[in-house]
Amino acid sequence: MTTDTSLHPLDQAIALTTAAPGHYRGHLPPTYANMVGPFGGVIAAAMLNGILVHPEKQGDPVTVTINFAGPIADAPFELFTRIVRTNRSNQHWYAEITQGGQIAATATAILASRQNSWSDNELPFPDVPPAGTVKPWLIAAGPVWVKRYEFRMLEGILPLSGIPQPDSRSVLWVRDEPPRPLDFCALLALSDVFFPRIFMRQQKLGPAGTVSMTTHFHADAAALAHQGNRPLLACARAQRFYNNYFDQVAELWSDDGNLLASSSQSVYFKD
Amino acid sequence: MTTDTSLHPLDQAIALTTAAPGHYRGHLPPTYANMVGPFGGVIAAAMLNGILVHPEKQGDPVTVTINFAGPIADAPFELFTRIVRTNRSNQHWYAEITQGGQIAATATAILASRQNSWSDNELPFPDVPPAGTVKPWLIAAGPVWVKRYEFRMLEGILPLSGIPQPDSRSVLWVRDEPPRPLDFCALLALSDVFFPRIFMRQQKLGPAGTVSMTTHFHADAAALAHQGNRPLLACARAQRFYNNYFDQVAELWSDDGNLLASSSQSVYFKD
Repeated sequence: MTTDTSLHPLDQAIALTTAAPGHYRGHLPPTYANMVGPFGGVIAAAMLNGILVHPEKQGDPVTVTINFAGPIADAPFELFTRIVRTNRSNQHWYAEITQGGQIAATATAILASRQNSWSDNELPFPDVPPAGTVKPWLIAAGPVWVKRYEFRMLEGILPLSGIPQPDSRSVLWVRDEPPRPLDFCALLALSDVFFPRIFMRQQKLGPAGTVSMTTHFHADAAALAHQGNRPLLACARAQRFYNNYFDQVAELWSDDGNLLASSSQSVYFKD
Repeated sequence: MTTDTSLHPLDQAIALTTAAPGHYRGHLPPTYANMVGPFGGVIAAAMLNGILVHPEKQGDPVTVTINFAGPIADAPFELFTRIVRTNRSNQHWYAEITQGGQIAATATAILASRQNSWSDNELPFPDVPPAGTVKPWLIAAGPVWVKRYEFRMLEGILPLSGIPQPDSRSVLWVRDEPPRPLDFCALLALSDVFFPRIFMRQQKLGPAGTVSMTTHFHADAAALAHQGNRPLLACARAQRFYNNYFDQVAELWSDDGNLLASSSQSVYFKD
């Protein structure tokens, strides 16, 4: 597989070649490297891509769950995507990434054909200054993938002081770097940009990794196109830490105040 | 398959016979009937049961996602549970229910062997009166499954006035009826006891159904045993309604203030 360097780094990373419908090959590059293996968001985006390029795909993603079962090396992988059931207005999917004879990730997804209906943002849009008034974070350290995003931090920073903090909440403006028009794969990847909340609480780094991420989409393709490449408002916090695992919930908003995605993770940690 | 009527109704409902390890047969009874097919919580609990009875199971559930792909009839079903990968401290699973030649539900789950670690309830326990001071809800109507639970409503009732409400939040004490010691299957079922939030907002019934539910567990078997059969504090609300789908997030707490499970759903609705 050759890389088309005219593409955005995200599109290079999640590019697939088709062996057969539902059987794809990809290679997650070091441009999105995390501490061990690639950034989970780009694994998720590649898996969703393998559903969306399938010729029998019907509708837009409504909910996606990715379980990260093992590390993925900087090497080719196989992706299998399978239609579980097609109903009148939705379609259920299962996907697996394999590498070196082992399953590295599984995913389920539901696509749907949405009709216009009564709609409402029940969760209020946070009261924050516009992205343009907040300076981008100058990233001095951290894993490579962090350089693929532009972060404008409002609340919840990571000075790594070692002084425990009473909450793990972060609020920030975020977009792809370089800027890229929003679509479902990019939004799914963005729902994984939050550092493990244990780092925020303890203000120190340690072993931690997402084992599962679920993202519910509250948008269709037109709503994502409307957002374009402008920063999203992103919020994340933990709810409970208990014996090596915590949950991490997140919301991603359009800059005009619509909740585009809500997400939750189960994250492993060791202290 | 015969029903052991000495068992609690939940245990009768989720009972499985083993055709082979990873291949089970069950039959969801009318005692947990919903508007169409069985209560989703009992479908979820039966699928988790088919993972937990597997002889190669390692650890306790940390996160479970169930996608409801089609209705399940009051008739036998087949359940297939498969280990995706076993790691040193966790195990990844995939499960499917089939009936009449079609896949009716899929699930993924991660089990883990937890060690003692730093733990914390970051989300504060709601300030509510004890369960014993709140009268059980006398259920006059609604689907059959509602009779399998005892509800003590604190906030967010359903008078079906037809007068739209500004929020969908519910707070209640809830347990199995008759009372049953808490375990992972019961807690997973309990994470689906919340009526579709669209009913709360619009105060009228209409077509609605969960398409996907994810529950993160913040407890081990001992923590659930400690809760016993006492009521759990349960909270639920929607975050966004958009063109036929909304999300619904929920928390389930022990009566001594520990978050035992956090959950989210993607729910279809039509108005």
